[in-house]
Amino acid sequence: MKRYKKNDNVSYTLGTTLTIELLKEKIEYVRKVYFHTKLEQNEVIQKIEVLCKKHNIPIEKSDKPFNILSQKENCFVIGEFNKFDTELEKNKNHVVLVNPSNSGNLGTIIRSMVGFGITNLAIISPGVDIFDVKTVRASMGALFSINFEYFDSFLDYQDHYQNNNLYPFMLQANKKITNTKFQKPFSLIFGNEATGLPRDFLRVGTSVIIPHSKNIDSLNLTIAASIAMYEATKEEF
Amino acid sequence: MKRYKKNDNVSYTLGTTLTIELLKEKIEYVRKVYFHTKLEQNEVIQKIEVLCKKHNIPIEKSDKPFNILSQKENCFVIGEFNKFDTELEKNKNHVVLVNPSNSGNLGTIIRSMVGFGITNLAIISPGVDIFDVKTVRASMGALFSINFEYFDSFLDYQDHYQNNNLYPFMLQANKKITNTKFQKPFSLIFGNEATGLPRDFLRVGTSVIIPHSKNIDSLNLTIAASIAMYEATKEEF
Repeated sequence: MKRYKKNDNVSYTLGTTLTIELLKEKIEYVRKVYFHTKLEQNEVIQKIEVLCKKHNIPIEKSDKPFNILSQKENCFVIGEFNKFDTELEKNKNHVVLVNPSNSGNLGTIIRSMVGFGITNLAIISPGVDIFDVKTVRASMGALFSINFEYFDSFLDYQDHYQNNNLYPFMLQANKKITNTKFQKPFSLIFGNEATGLPRDFLRVGTSVIIPHSKNIDSLNLTIAASIAMYEATKEEF
Repeated sequence: MKRYKKNDNVSYTLGTTLTIELLKEKIEYVRKVYFHTKLEQNEVIQKIEVLCKKHNIPIEKSDKPFNILSQKENCFVIGEFNKFDTELEKNKNHVVLVNPSNSGNLGTIIRSMVGFGITNLAIISPGVDIFDVKTVRASMGALFSINFEYFDSFLDYQDHYQNNNLYPFMLQANKKITNTKFQKPFSLIFGNEATGLPRDFLRVGTSVIIPHSKNIDSLNLTIAASIAMYEATKEEF
C-alpha cells in the first residue's frame, strides 16, 4: 500500500458514499475494501459487507491505508479497484475535453455530465488522469457510470466518431449559446483551463460562446461546461 | 507576518494577476506589496511599481511572506490589504448564499457573479469567511468588484431589501428554471453545499428547481448557482 500514482493499476474510493457507488456500478473491478478500526456499524456499512461477501471481495480492518491515502479525518471506508477501460458509444452525445489539467475540475464536470444525462467523455491527451483519487472524489462516484476514452489528438477522436455534430466552446466564437440549436448526437468541446481551445477550432463544426461581462476574462471551465450541458439538454428534463 | 486567520484585520492576494486586480479596484485598502527575490522584471511588475509609488504603498523584497502564505512555487507577488466593509445596493439583483461552507466554492461563485453582471452578494451566517485567501484566489480578483454583506438570518436580509423578488433554489421546488421568468430586481438564493436550503424556503417567493437526472443527488453548488445566474441574465449578454 502506497500513495496513489498515475501509473498504478489500481485506484481508490475514499469514503463510504464513494465506495457504495463503486460497488453498485463497477463491482467486477473491486479488489478489496478497507474498514478503519474506528468505523461504526450502521445500515450502509452492513450493505457494503453483504455486497462484499456475495462477490468474494475481502474486507480488511486496518488504519494504515487511511494514513497513506486520506487526509480527511472523517474517512472510514476505502475501496480499492482495478482501473478499467471503456469505449464511447457511437451516435450518443459526448463531452470532449482537450488537455484538461485539473483533477478536481475533471471530477466536477463528470458529475455534471451524469446530472444532464451525457455519459460519454473523450479526453484529448495530454490530459489529467481520470482515475486520480481527487477526480474520483470530485465526481462523487459519477465516474463509475460514464464511458470515457483518451485520444492522442482531436483528429483521432473525430475519425472514430464521425457522426457527431461538433460544438467547440471558445471566446472567439461568433454564435451565442442562446441562439444555438444543438443537433443530436452532439459533441460539446472545451479547452484547457488556462488556455482554452486553440484558434483553429473556429473551423470545427459550429463554434459557440457563452456571453459574459467584460469584467472577467473567462468563466471557470467547470462552469462553462456545465452551462453548455444544461443548455444542450434542457428540453429533456 | 503569519498564516492567514479569519480574525485578522488583513488578508492577502497571492500572485501577480490577483494583486493587479486588488490595486485596480481597491487600492485605498492596500497596505503593502511583497516581491519575491526571484521575481523577474516585466511590464506587469513595472505597472505594480508605478501604482505603488503613486499611492505611497511600500514594496518589500522578502521571501518570508511567500514561505508562510503560499504553497505554490510560481507565486512571486503578494498584496497585503485591510479588510473592508461594503453594503448591498437596493433595487439591484442579488445572490444570497445561506451558510456556505467552502472557501473555494465561494470564490468561484463570485467569479461567476461578475461574469453575469450580478455584483451584490448576501451571506447568511454562519458562512465561510469572504476574505479567506482561498476565496480571494478562487474569485480571481472578482471579489474586489462586488458588494457583499453578512446577515444573522435570512429574515434580517429580507427586512433590509424588501423590494427584491425572491427565488430560492431547491430540489423540492415545483417550478422548473426553464419555465421561470426572473423579475428584476431578483435575489437568487442557495443553501449550504451539503444540506441545501431548509424546507421552509418553499414558502419564500418562487422556489425553483434546475431539473437533472436521477443518477446524481444534486448539482455542485457552484454549478447550480452559475446556471441560475446564466438563465436569469441571459437576455442581457
